[in-house]
Amino acid sequence: MIIEGIKSPNDLKCLSVDELKQVATEIRTLLIEKLSHHGGHCGPNFGMVEATIAMHYVFDSPCDKIVFDVSHQSYAHKMLTGRVEAFLSAEHYDDVSGYTEPSESVHDHFTIGHTSTAVSLAGGLAKGRDLRGEHGNVIAVVGDGSLSGGEALEGLDWAAELGTNFIIVVNDNQMSIAENHGGLYANLAELRRTNGECSCNLFRAMGLDYIYVDKGNDIEALIEAFSKVKDIDHPIVVHINTLKGKGYEPAVLDKERWHWSMPFDAATGELLNPIEVETYNELTATHLLKRMKDDSRICAITAGTPGTWGWTPERRAQAGKQYVDVGIAEEHAVALASGIAKAGGKPVFGVASSFVQRAYDQVSQDLCINNNPATILVLWGSLMSLNDVTHLCHFDIPLLCNIPNLVYLAPTSREEYLAMLDWSIDYREHPVAIRVPVVPIAPAKYPVDTDYSCLNKYQVVKQGSKVAILALGNFFEMGASAVRLLEEQGINATLVNPRFISGVDTDLLNKLTNEHSVVVTLEDGVLDGGFGEKIARFYGPTAVKTLCYGARKQFVDRYSRSEFLAANRLVDTMIVDDVLKVLK
Amino acid sequence: MIIEGIKSPNDLKCLSVDELKQVATEIRTLLIEKLSHHGGHCGPNFGMVEATIAMHYVFDSPCDKIVFDVSHQSYAHKMLTGRVEAFLSAEHYDDVSGYTEPSESVHDHFTIGHTSTAVSLAGGLAKGRDLRGEHGNVIAVVGDGSLSGGEALEGLDWAAELGTNFIIVVNDNQMSIAENHGGLYANLAELRRTNGECSCNLFRAMGLDYIYVDKGNDIEALIEAFSKVKDIDHPIVVHINTLKGKGYEPAVLDKERWHWSMPFDAATGELLNPIEVETYNELTATHLLKRMKDDSRICAITAGTPGTWGWTPERRAQAGKQYVDVGIAEEHAVALASGIAKAGGKPVFGVASSFVQRAYDQVSQDLCINNNPATILVLWGSLMSLNDVTHLCHFDIPLLCNIPNLVYLAPTSREEYLAMLDWSIDYREHPVAIRVPVVPIAPAKYPVDTDYSCLNKYQVVKQGSKVAILALGNFFEMGASAVRLLEEQGINATLVNPRFISGVDTDLLNKLTNEHSVVVTLEDGVLDGGFGEKIARFYGPTAVKTLCYGARKQFVDRYSRSEFLAANRLVDTMIVDDVLKVLK
Repeated sequence: MIIEGIKSPNDLKCLSVDELKQVATEIRTLLIEKLSHHGGHCGPNFGMVEATIAMHYVFDSPCDKIVFDVSHQSYAHKMLTGRVEAFLSAEHYDDVSGYTEPSESVHDHFTIGHTSTAVSLAGGLAKGRDLRGEHGNVIAVVGDGSLSGGEALEGLDWAAELGTNFIIVVNDNQMSIAENHGGLYANLAELRRTNGECSCNLFRAMGLDYIYVDKGNDIEALIEAFSKVKDIDHPIVVHINTLKGKGYEPAVLDKERWHWSMPFDAATGELLNPIEVETYNELTATHLLKRMKDDSRICAITAGTPGTWGWTPERRAQAGKQYVDVGIAEEHAVALASGIAKAGGKPVFGVASSFVQRAYDQVSQDLCINNNPATILVLWGSLMSLNDVTHLCHFDIPLLCNIPNLVYLAPTSREEYLAMLDWSIDYREHPVAIRVPVVPIAPAKYPVDTDYSCLNKYQVVKQGSKVAILALGNFFEMGASAVRLLEEQGINATLVNPRFISGVDTDLLNKLTNEHSVVVTLEDGVLDGGFGEKIARFYGPTAVKTLCYGARKQFVDRYSRSEFLAANRLVDTMIVDDVLKVLK
Repeated sequence: MIIEGIKSPNDLKCLSVDELKQVATEIRTLLIEKLSHHGGHCGPNFGMVEATIAMHYVFDSPCDKIVFDVSHQSYAHKMLTGRVEAFLSAEHYDDVSGYTEPSESVHDHFTIGHTSTAVSLAGGLAKGRDLRGEHGNVIAVVGDGSLSGGEALEGLDWAAELGTNFIIVVNDNQMSIAENHGGLYANLAELRRTNGECSCNLFRAMGLDYIYVDKGNDIEALIEAFSKVKDIDHPIVVHINTLKGKGYEPAVLDKERWHWSMPFDAATGELLNPIEVETYNELTATHLLKRMKDDSRICAITAGTPGTWGWTPERRAQAGKQYVDVGIAEEHAVALASGIAKAGGKPVFGVASSFVQRAYDQVSQDLCINNNPATILVLWGSLMSLNDVTHLCHFDIPLLCNIPNLVYLAPTSREEYLAMLDWSIDYREHPVAIRVPVVPIAPAKYPVDTDYSCLNKYQVVKQGSKVAILALGNFFEMGASAVRLLEEQGINATLVNPRFISGVDTDLLNKLTNEHSVVVTLEDGVLDGGFGEKIARFYGPTAVKTLCYGARKQFVDRYSRSEFLAANRLVDTMIVDDVLKVLK
């Protein structure tokens, strides 16, 4: 294979077009092989093979700098920049991350995993180049649903004023993770239909120069286009029409299914280990659908990620106008939910912990100052869920629990989750966020309330003395286990399900001071700014000692979950050891 | 005056056009009278008088719902919706807020103070109306610089898909607070030049219908346009060309100066009480300008608010390419800064505490995961600065200090601030945020370091025993005062300037345990998720008692600063009382 000999993009430059095409074929073969065994982003990478080859053929990376938006389509780029080994042999698959990563290669300029950032980040490289009086091309590659994100639109608007070299490759594969939403995609369609000639042009309207490449999977056409814009003296958009999934038939036929995949049988496309148990995702969508049928005011909102909470195409069709995909636009999603709630609708916005970060200001200003009763379902909030550094779901507790008016709940069982969800939909006093459990679905082991209107009331699940363990959400079972272990040590500890992340049950905490000398908090997230610190502050002036468990503040990447928990002493036996030490 | 008789928009509907024009004149007279005595937003309100009258003449508020972006241009709206008294007599000036406020009137649907939110919020009202099967017009009024904000662009993009009545009035006054930045404003100029006829049209490119009103301060033209779109069955943009400041000559001639003003002499436009002492704003811009001359890599970035940190038009001109205004686009600003830093530039982004909220995800992902050495200057971070609920600067500590890799500093004096700023510009290890003091500029009363590379080292300003007071940033003097008061009680307390908001000096805290039984923390922000709680957590398992001072988590509006501090026991004597109680 030619690809095995490519150690850097320079090795591409002496190849003929036919050889480059062969490289494209080889890259796809390696992609199918690795993805089918390892899982990863499929469609985005299949579609960008030719464009990546052509960029590296025309430009001189790393002097010329290429920044991939989301960077989930950078696998071919990794193969062409000295990292092909990670796609050739299974034992090296995990040598590289699924995103661009500067620690891996000088050809990667940023660690990127959230969408819509590339124009701004690459714009910074261009501005930095200009400030230093340097030269070279800066190329941002954006698309695959990212254009609807506010940061991308802000970046495009700004770029027009730069006045120096800046090349924005718009990878138009006509898809987001699911279908695209938003008016601008009609303009992209019109641009494709007219071969880029239609006079109403979003990019030109934002002040940018523009060219169109209809054959976005044709290496020669791409080389021609990139050669034309290389060393250009002003910002320009190169709009390329690509086919998401190209080269792997199942991924072309069902683009949503194949945006990302767990390991699969390459021949049939079937998952090797399909999830067969019920998940909270499925539970959520089916439950909401059922409620929607009886209440036309309920409206599910997603920001381009319907699959993360069970909104299959079939369910979306069933929900009809009661389902809204705003595209990748979390800020808008939150403000929209606030408006719907204000108008008497019952919006439920489902969003991953890592992505709700994008809407802090909207949660605070648009939603919570206005105190409109929308529901936010925070998905994957846990130290044990996503473990790529750009997708960590560790920070939603400090992010949300310190915003006034927001009721943030942590259910611990199937029944409690549904009770909280139902209650939040009908509750009119405050916005409510619910941290959807990430542990396997389990039935409640203790009575579950149906009404949470009496805010910040923790639930004493087992009354004991001396030690009280406040075990939040996903870590409730860890707390229960620690209580059992303490029992073996002769300590009859109290076990509390706090339920409310965002408030302190001062009555209960005051009561605990009577017969407890140590209070332990457990939370499945970063400790800094979180739940436990509030308890520590409460007991600060008293004789009660507090021990807070959660993760240290740090960015971690592709960590072993069990090792990470142990490193943070998030293990029942360690907790018990610490408690015994403090009791001495 | 006619305006005195207008109790609701209904009272407008029977007036002739000439009478409506007279109402416009009366409104401007009242605006000049109130603004000159009270201060407030000038230019935005002067420019929107006719459009507001025409909207209320044509539409039927509150059945038809008007949502003003930023809502700093809603003064005429308030006068026409039963609140004219607050503009007629000085004793009632403060009966209304400077923004729309649902608690004041059914004609106000949201409390709004941040930009770029109206399309999304109003979009929610429209969607809620549709879900409930109701009718009526929904009108979003956006402009005055807001269009460059990601949330506004996300909202416009989404709006095209709504498919039902939604009217977006784009108030194009050719200005932001300062001059507009971003490529889209060239498109607005072209639309104005061609009377809305040019074929490349940003709004149409986003999938929206569109009409243009050239005479945006002509009541008849506006009535005609609004009548045309009233009860329309799909989303449409009504682009109106208005004159910011219209009717008050100084405000027309110097639009930036007159965006907002302190009380002034109506005849001359001169401020009644000009600020004559040096401010941290002035200090920052002059210091950066001086450094820029020696170092072409330094670059000041603002997101549409140059005046908030001393960037007058003259200084902007002097900085040239080393000054970047990205428009109101905080997300982009942070990512841009990250890119510039990555490329070896030295970006300094100045942003108000209330607005840095808009870029949490960018600070975390684009900047801190990438660990690029940009500087963020957080302006107005204090309980004692802005006191409108939408502009509270209480939350930046929990927002920023819990993000890994970010070094967040709190200087306490002129020298310390400049030392930290200089150090941050040259430091290459981490991004640095500095909480620019809001207290009057004061010289340092103790030695100031020039190097902060040894992270999280607190400074012991006075060594004592028994009680230690960790007094952060703006509250350092309050801590010093409490120490003096304790001395009067025979307690020789330790005084610490923590300097680092984002980290715990575990060595020092451990050392303090030897001779101290109470540790007090003081921070000028909300307590929840902040600095003090980290100290409380640290001491949780020990015998050291902690008392944390800051504000309770709550949204407060137009509060008395002194009463607010007292209600939160942020008074030196109260702190001493509490300490003495705990010591007993």
